[in-house]
This record gives sequence, structure tokens and C-alpha cells, in this order.
Amino acid sequence: MFPTDPISNLATLIRCPSVTPAEGGALRALEAMLAPLGFRVDRVVAKEAGTPDVENLYARVGSEGPHLMFAGHTDVVPVGDEAAWSHGPFSAEIANGEMYGRGAVDMKGGIACFVAAVARHVEKHGPPKGSISLLITGDEEGPAINGTSKLLEWAAAKGERWDACLVGEPTNPDQLGDMIKIGRRGSLSGRITVHGVQGHAAYPHLADNPVRGILQLTAALMHPAFDQGTQDFQPSNLEVTTIDVGNSAVNVIPAKASAAFNIRFNDGWTAESLMAEIVARLDRAAKDGTLRPGRAPVKYEIVWNERPSQVFLTRDDALVESLSGAVEAVIGRRPQLSTTGGTSDARFIKDYCPVVEFGLVGRTMHMVDERVAVDELETLTEIYGSFIARWFRHAVA
Amino acid sequence: MFPTDPISNLATLIRCPSVTPAEGGALRALEAMLAPLGFRVDRVVAKEAGTPDVENLYARVGSEGPHLMFAGHTDVVPVGDEAAWSHGPFSAEIANGEMYGRGAVDMKGGIACFVAAVARHVEKHGPPKGSISLLITGDEEGPAINGTSKLLEWAAAKGERWDACLVGEPTNPDQLGDMIKIGRRGSLSGRITVHGVQGHAAYPHLADNPVRGILQLTAALMHPAFDQGTQDFQPSNLEVTTIDVGNSAVNVIPAKASAAFNIRFNDGWTAESLMAEIVARLDRAAKDGTLRPGRAPVKYEIVWNERPSQVFLTRDDALVESLSGAVEAVIGRRPQLSTTGGTSDARFIKDYCPVVEFGLVGRTMHMVDERVAVDELETLTEIYGSFIARWFRHAVA
Ligand SMILES: [Zn+2]
Ligand SMILES: [Zn+2]
Repeated sequence: MFPTDPISNLATLIRCPSVTPAEGGALRALEAMLAPLGFRVDRVVAKEAGTPDVENLYARVGSEGPHLMFAGHTDVVPVGDEAAWSHGPFSAEIANGEMYGRGAVDMKGGIACFVAAVARHVEKHGPPKGSISLLITGDEEGPAINGTSKLLEWAAAKGERWDACLVGEPTNPDQLGDMIKIGRRGSLSGRITVHGVQGHAAYPHLADNPVRGILQLTAALMHPAFDQGTQDFQPSNLEVTTIDVGNSAVNVIPAKASAAFNIRFNDGWTAESLMAEIVARLDRAAKDGTLRPGRAPVKYEIVWNERPSQVFLTRDDALVESLSGAVEAVIGRRPQLSTTGGTSDARFIKDYCPVVEFGLVGRTMHMVDERVAVDELETLTEIYGSFIARWFRHAVA
Repeated sequence: MFPTDPISNLATLIRCPSVTPAEGGALRALEAMLAPLGFRVDRVVAKEAGTPDVENLYARVGSEGPHLMFAGHTDVVPVGDEAAWSHGPFSAEIANGEMYGRGAVDMKGGIACFVAAVARHVEKHGPPKGSISLLITGDEEGPAINGTSKLLEWAAAKGERWDACLVGEPTNPDQLGDMIKIGRRGSLSGRITVHGVQGHAAYPHLADNPVRGILQLTAALMHPAFDQGTQDFQPSNLEVTTIDVGNSAVNVIPAKASAAFNIRFNDGWTAESLMAEIVARLDRAAKDGTLRPGRAPVKYEIVWNERPSQVFLTRDDALVESLSGAVEAVIGRRPQLSTTGGTSDARFIKDYCPVVEFGLVGRTMHMVDERVAVDELETLTEIYGSFIARWFRHAVA
């Protein structure tokens, strides 16, 4: 029997306790849904020293182009205070028209609907005129090292190529159909350490207080603003997430101070141009004498966190229009095209093909009583179905 | 035999390992020196919950006024890396005209010289025309809770009154006779905590980063300067000694940030007026929008450390002139009258009588190979002797 019912699909997936990095039976269940539809399924275990092994899944039906990828994850965040849940977090119980469970919206629900949409398509039209793949990771909510990026490398290495990708993350803030993500800001993190000279608070001229230096440097990172936003993106924003000195001696000027920061940047920047701007600001602030009159420049060093996320913006009109048109056809209004929010695994996929994101309403994600209205599962399945039909029509034409 | 030789007196004291809070035999040795001179000696043990008991000593010769007090401490700081000492830190060995030992200059040397000066005075003139007291603590280098301040309270409670005090701390930076301390800056410490709203770095508008707040508040404490100094004092100076957030999550905006500060202030302020100024600066900075555009004022609280040290300046001309005159008579030049450096136990004494400070050269204090030139012990003994004679002449006249 084809898995055409998203409610039944989701209940099956929720009942697999796949808290990162546990597979929890979720990929096995998904494989069982996809096999009858003609998908060839690979289960790929990714390993890296210092991180747990993670199971991932890649499935494809068809062998010709055009090739549409659906990407997502079956891993879920921990349940938190289990006693606070109205219904068991892995029970998939339905109450008042809502299905409860960890992953209901983030994002087993998106997978359940996409599988149902493909099943209905195959049931009605037979195999797609081209290929459809599912690229599903078990490491999106964790370190994301053994997940989407390795699975893409693995698939590309065996010759897989894609023409477009839909990520099924919950992109809608309040109502299904609100928002499609067509890009994401980049993310860059670093840590600054200022080296001073320890001493006694009564003899500051014999010391060099690194707190003065770290204040000058961090203030220069936060002000003025990096930009005022671009046509498609919010202004870039930097947050200093910690400052640490750890000096408990009241009368002692410490030797060292450090601070960490994270910046979310728009398409006015690359990670590289932003690093250069940040270093220029720090070098300028290091020479500022306001808090350190008559002193030599602040001695500091900066260490960048590995793997910054580059900003991206998808300009593939056929892809965006197929999805927007599908939303409008089912819901009756056009979704907002947005680039807000955090990073997602789309940051890895955009190096392989154009990517957009659309899924359920994210309001309860990561919370106690995560849940989804069952009629929204039907609606999303219809949107995904309409999208598949529209995209192949565009792509084949 | 009267203890007229400061070298012998100091050797005896150095050989008592009186690292705070240990008495180490030092007060017993001092008592043995003072008894033959006619001093009535009290050994006073001070106690306070959470701190070690400390032995102190109060000794007085004479029962009439005028009454001169000499104040000091026999406790010493730890020896540090004992293997690095050229001579044992409790051996009092003499090499190349210098006596080695912990406390040689800070400040068993000052006590040794004062005792010798009094012994010579009594030997030559008989008992003083008035009274001389020694107020010696074993808790100057420690928490200073069970030391001078309690000993003063104890003595005052049994009716003791003083007309002047000389503290024998090492006040000379380079050469014996350089510097008399006639006052000390005050010291005030506090801790500021800023309460923000935790959140994700990608959604800063849903959070309130307390790092922004703590930066604004601490910068306002450091700039502009509190004053430009006064006739007798350096400018007041504030150091932020630590900032702590302790957030290790790269993408998380923390909930709380705190900072501690210490300010050394001159006679343009009292601890109270300074606290008011600091709160005014913080309140103003809390409303500043530079780093927090469009936000409500920073929510912060401030906790003041107990027992600030008030600033003081001794304006007793007879006392200052007796000491300056004695230095000039023995050394041939007048000392600088200074208010620089850290706090000392003079901060407690100034509430009872005018107080000045003069002792050996402090260059090696608290260091490995702390030592004193033996001829400087003789010179200081002569200065103390001249001071005693001059002060009683002034005071009786
Ligand atoms: Zn997700
Ligand atoms: Zn001392």
C-alpha cells in the first residue's frame, strides 16, 4: 500500500524516538515507506573522530533528469521536561485535531507530507518524468558534522547531480503559507583575547588592564552597524556572546581578558570580507586612547571558529515560482519570500543546486507539547504535490 | 640588657616564621625586648567567625600624656619559591652588608629600629616624658579583620587615648629618607550585575544581550576621569577588575553579565559621595542607546563590598614636622610628603589620632630575597630616635 496519508506517515515517524544522534527506527520506517514507490534507498553512516556516528538516508526514484531533491532530518531535539507534556512525546496522540509529539513540526511532519505527496503522484501518474530524491540526515539538531554536508559529498562522489532542492523545515511563523525561505544570512564566530599586564589596583600605571582593551575592542564590533540591510536581507547583526576574565581578587588588575562574538551577515558581505572588516575595526579600536590614555595599542589576538556559514540567496525563478504558485493554488494567498532567521542545512545544499525552504508552522518547535494541526498535514501534502507537478512542468519545458 | 641594636633585634624577629596568621614566636620575642624597658605588655587574641584567630600585641610605657603610638605588624607574606632565595628566608643571614629574610623591610625591620630607638632613649634619658605605645598586629598581610582595627577598639575600650601615631611600613621607594606618607587614598569596590533576556544569536530582537548593557555601564565608570587630582593627592582612578559572563554556547545570547571594580579615590570624595556619583553614572549609562538602540534602560544591580577605606590626610604640623625634621637631621635632606600607593592600617588609626608613616626602603618587599642594608637599620634607628625627641619636645611645649 502506498503511504499516501500524511497523518499515518507522521504517527509512524513520531513513534521512533530519534533524539540526535539516535536513529530510533525513524530511517528504517522511512525506508519502508519509500521502497514500494520505487525508491532505491541507501543508508549512509557518517563518522568523525570526537563525534558520535550518525545514520543518514539517501533515496532516489528515477534515473533521468530533471532531478528534484527534498532534504530534511528525522533527528529531534530532546523532549525536555517529559512530565510537562500533555501527551507522550513519542505517542503521536491526537487531541482536538492536533497531533502531539517531538518532531511533529520540526520536521518529521514535513517528511511525512512530502512522502505522501510523492506517493499520490506515483499512484496517479506513475514514476516522475525525471528523478526525485530524499536526502535525510540524523544530525541536524546536533553538531551537524555527520549529516547533510557529508551526505551531499557522498552522493556527489557517486555521481548524483540535482537541479533544485526543497528543504522541509517549518518556515511559517504563524499560519501555513506565510513564508518561504529563499536564502539565509551567513554566520561567523570568533574569540578575541587581550593580553595585558597584571598588577595591583593601587598602581595601575605599573599594570595594563586588559579589561580596558577588551571593552574598546568589543564596543567597536557592536557600533556602528555593519550595514542597513540589503534588498533581500535584514541588516547584519553582531552579538558579543560572552566576556570572561575570571579574576576574583578585588584589588588585582588581571593579565588577560577574552570575548566571543557571533555575527549574522547579509549578502553585502562574504565571510572573508567581513573578517577583514572586523580586523580593521579591532586594529583601529586597539589604538584608541579613550579608555587607555597614553598607552601603546591593545595587544590582542583573534581566533575564528571553523566553518563559517556563507550567506546565500536563491535566484532560481522557476523554483521559487513553482513553490509560491503551489502555496497560492492551495491556500489562496502568496507567501512572503524571506531570508530571516538562523542558518539551516540549506547552507550546505546551496553549493550543489538552488534551494528553497518551506514546511509547517514552527510555533511549537523545540518546545514541550510540540504539535501540528492534522488538517495542516493534508494542506501541506497538497502544496507539496502541486509544487512537484509545477516544478517538473517548468523543468521539462 | 636593653635592645639597643636594631640588627640584633631584627635577626631575632626574622627567625620567627610568622607567616599570617601564625604568631611564629615573633610577638613573644618582641615582648621580651620591651619588658626590660618598662613596657606593660598585653597579648590580645582577636576572633571572628570564618577567619583564623590572630594574636596581637599592645605595649605601653608611661601613664601620662602626651602619648605617642608606634604601629606595625610582625606577620609576613609567604616566602614564595623558597629554593630561589640566596639565603634562608628565616635565617637572617648577612651577606655583603645586607640582612636577608622575609619581613626584613616589611616590616620587622621598622619594629626592630623603633624598639632600638626607644631603648636608647630610655637608656640615656630614662622613661619618656609622657607615654610611648606599640600597637603590633599579626593580621596586616591577611584579611586585616582580626588586626589593627580590633586592637584599637580593644585599647580604646579600656581607656587608651593617643596624641599621634607613627606607622613603620616601608615608605621609601628607592632611598632611605625619600618619602613620608601623610595620607592615603580611599578604596571602594563593588560588583554590577546586568540582567538581560536569553535567546538565540539569530533572533536578537527576541532577546536582550546583557553584554551590551555591561559594556555601557563599565565604560561609563572608566570615562571620563573622576577628577584631575587635588593639591595633596593623585587623580582618583577606577579599574574594572573583571567581567564575567561564562557563556560557552557560540550562538546563544546569555541571560546575565557581571563586572567588579575597585576605585582609589582622593580627598575630593568620601566613599559616600563617590557611591552616589557611580550610581548616577550607571543610571545615565543605562539609558544610553548607543549599543542598545530602541531598548528600555539596562536592568542592573550594584552590590558594594563591605568596609570601604576612607581617604585621609594628616594635617598635624607638629607630627609631620617632627618626622621631616628628624629625617633631615640624620640624612641631610627633607623627605617628600606623599599620599600615593595602596591602603595601609593607617586607615584605621586615623580615626583615633593623627598618623604618619615612615620606615625602610620597600623595593624588595613581598619578593624572593627580601633584604635590608644593615647600615640603613642604624640610620632608621637614629631617625626614629630624633623623631621621638622632637615630637615630645613639640607636644610638651
Ligand atoms: Zn529542523
Ligand atoms: Zn607591611
